[in-house]
Amino acid sequence: MEVVQVLRMNGGLGDTSYATNSLVQRKVISMTKPITEEAITQVYRSVDAIANRFCIAELGCSSGPNTLAVAAELLSIVHQLSRSHGRQLPEFQILLNDLPGNDFNSIFHSLLPQFRAELNQQMGSKSAPCFVYGVPGSFYGRLFAANSLHFVHSSYSLMWLSKVPEGVEEWNKEEIYIGSKSMAPAINAYYNQFRVDFDTFLKCRSEEVVGGGAMVLTILGRKSENAASKECCYIWELLALSLKEMVSEGAIEEEKLHSFNIPQYTPSPAEVKRSVEEEGSFAISRLEATEIRWADCGSGESGYESYDVAKCMRSVAEPLLVEHFGESIIDELFVKYQRILTDRMSKEETKFVNVTVSLIRRG
Amino acid sequence: MEVVQVLRMNGGLGDTSYATNSLVQRKVISMTKPITEEAITQVYRSVDAIANRFCIAELGCSSGPNTLAVAAELLSIVHQLSRSHGRQLPEFQILLNDLPGNDFNSIFHSLLPQFRAELNQQMGSKSAPCFVYGVPGSFYGRLFAANSLHFVHSSYSLMWLSKVPEGVEEWNKEEIYIGSKSMAPAINAYYNQFRVDFDTFLKCRSEEVVGGGAMVLTILGRKSENAASKECCYIWELLALSLKEMVSEGAIEEEKLHSFNIPQYTPSPAEVKRSVEEEGSFAISRLEATEIRWADCGSGESGYESYDVAKCMRSVAEPLLVEHFGESIIDELFVKYQRILTDRMSKEETKFVNVTVSLIRRG
Repeated sequence: MEVVQVLRMNGGLGDTSYATNSLVQRKVISMTKPITEEAITQVYRSVDAIANRFCIAELGCSSGPNTLAVAAELLSIVHQLSRSHGRQLPEFQILLNDLPGNDFNSIFHSLLPQFRAELNQQMGSKSAPCFVYGVPGSFYGRLFAANSLHFVHSSYSLMWLSKVPEGVEEWNKEEIYIGSKSMAPAINAYYNQFRVDFDTFLKCRSEEVVGGGAMVLTILGRKSENAASKECCYIWELLALSLKEMVSEGAIEEEKLHSFNIPQYTPSPAEVKRSVEEEGSFAISRLEATEIRWADCGSGESGYESYDVAKCMRSVAEPLLVEHFGESIIDELFVKYQRILTDRMSKEETKFVNVTVSLIRRG
Repeated sequence: MEVVQVLRMNGGLGDTSYATNSLVQRKVISMTKPITEEAITQVYRSVDAIANRFCIAELGCSSGPNTLAVAAELLSIVHQLSRSHGRQLPEFQILLNDLPGNDFNSIFHSLLPQFRAELNQQMGSKSAPCFVYGVPGSFYGRLFAANSLHFVHSSYSLMWLSKVPEGVEEWNKEEIYIGSKSMAPAINAYYNQFRVDFDTFLKCRSEEVVGGGAMVLTILGRKSENAASKECCYIWELLALSLKEMVSEGAIEEEKLHSFNIPQYTPSPAEVKRSVEEEGSFAISRLEATEIRWADCGSGESGYESYDVAKCMRSVAEPLLVEHFGESIIDELFVKYQRILTDRMSKEETKFVNVTVSLIRRG
């Protein structure tokens, strides 16, 4: 599988339809707001350089209503802090990162004017200069100058691996992500790829974040120590079921299904902790797992829950599915998927787990 | 006239068709290469911070083959200098600026991979990290953090004013830019707008460029001290002639033509010098005027010269013309324009003048 294609999805839950995803994202941003506030306050108090320039990076920024949401919040907090400490406002640099296929034109043309208008309205003439740049590239490589960042934020992006782990295919024929029918080598390969990728991520950021600077990362994950736990795998197992129905109807070749795997990993808090400690550059100041009900993926309108979840997952998975199976199967696949979701969601309490970690750069 | 619409053209000779413009641009870049080389060498020798990070801004970068051309050249020179001085290579930051309507997606998606591939091929594994960002906004405002730039380059962008000067309309009915029929108040209004805009530009950059840092700016201009000199006005006077033909044929209302003016100014070297000295933050290390024949605007193929010039000017002027007169007149207008160009170019030696200034930030 082509890494580039996979990585198109860095932008949270995919580029294709942020309209639905944005609701989940907004909930996550709102849930993690106290952690973000705490982290930025800590940075503000500890980093001297902030007197002049405050540099924020949003990794996997996508191009929707949440692209600048956290940045706006951070600016507002730093304004308040500066006022209450009687300190001069710093200049702000906001670095918006996503893969080169992200729609930066739409950010610059549509979202930025609104962001600036709201900033002016909120801060009035007291607002400090705020420079917003687009930074194309994978966050599994260097993106920013050494010692240049004060605050890094990323939401719903770091569960995406840099590629489907090598060797998974052979041991994961019955599943499309880790699931109850995955064999041990597949689960190990998934975890090892996460460790390699997350370690690379931490190493790159450790060069870029100043001592005392912070990162707040929210990753789709799990609470249990079992990587094949239902809480993180079930949503994909049901998609695998839908694909299998299409195999039995002759619409998809069985071989084709066997070779399809999703390049993501949903870590536990303990796994995140282990990686951070092994890499060593960052200290953990908070580590939490929170839950969002599948049913809260959409508008919340009663009776539309399974439709909303199917739509949300379609926006995530469609580019990967199209690349592997072609476009012709998609509509039918998601009709089946929604039918299965309706059934399961009526019988079980189904939730996504978010792992949020707040980190401080040592030194 | 809407400033935003006008400013869409910051990208050198307009966004609509860089294919032709890119030839002129490439010639200008090649002609100014010795000046660029001299300036970057001077910066390299005088700025200590370069040991770690070298930050280049390209203003009015557009989205064509020349977008990264100068940056690539500068990188190559700094590599050579570092090697010959036995110094460590710095990290590079390349900040690509143009108006928010510029096609940044195409830069990130198409031009950047090629730039990186060539960089790797040229420098091999010895290449330093090179971060390329998109910076949307008008250069008649702050764009970059204070004291963050080492080198600023801009080619064929600074003749575009921030707006059509106020009060021009009344005194410039027979021309669309300064011309032989412009009245004195119109010429003064054009020059005053240039002074205000260029002063704003210099003030903004003076905050952003580090002491000892450099700017190399090439502006479409003139040699003579007469702002209505043929060398800078003739090309627009002939377009005005074509528009007048359409007025006499009833295709355009006379009033409509009277209220149309191009938001540019083509300064002399002395005017550039005066503005720089009055603003005071930069010292001039070089100031030159060079010439490019109209006939060199295109492929250089014999017999196609007037076609090439018409095409080039169309790509520059079309957005402004469409906004004011509507789309329906454009094809016919440029047929007339090319006919007039063919006639004049066969009888006269016609040239564009470029004013190039190389500046060093004092302090």
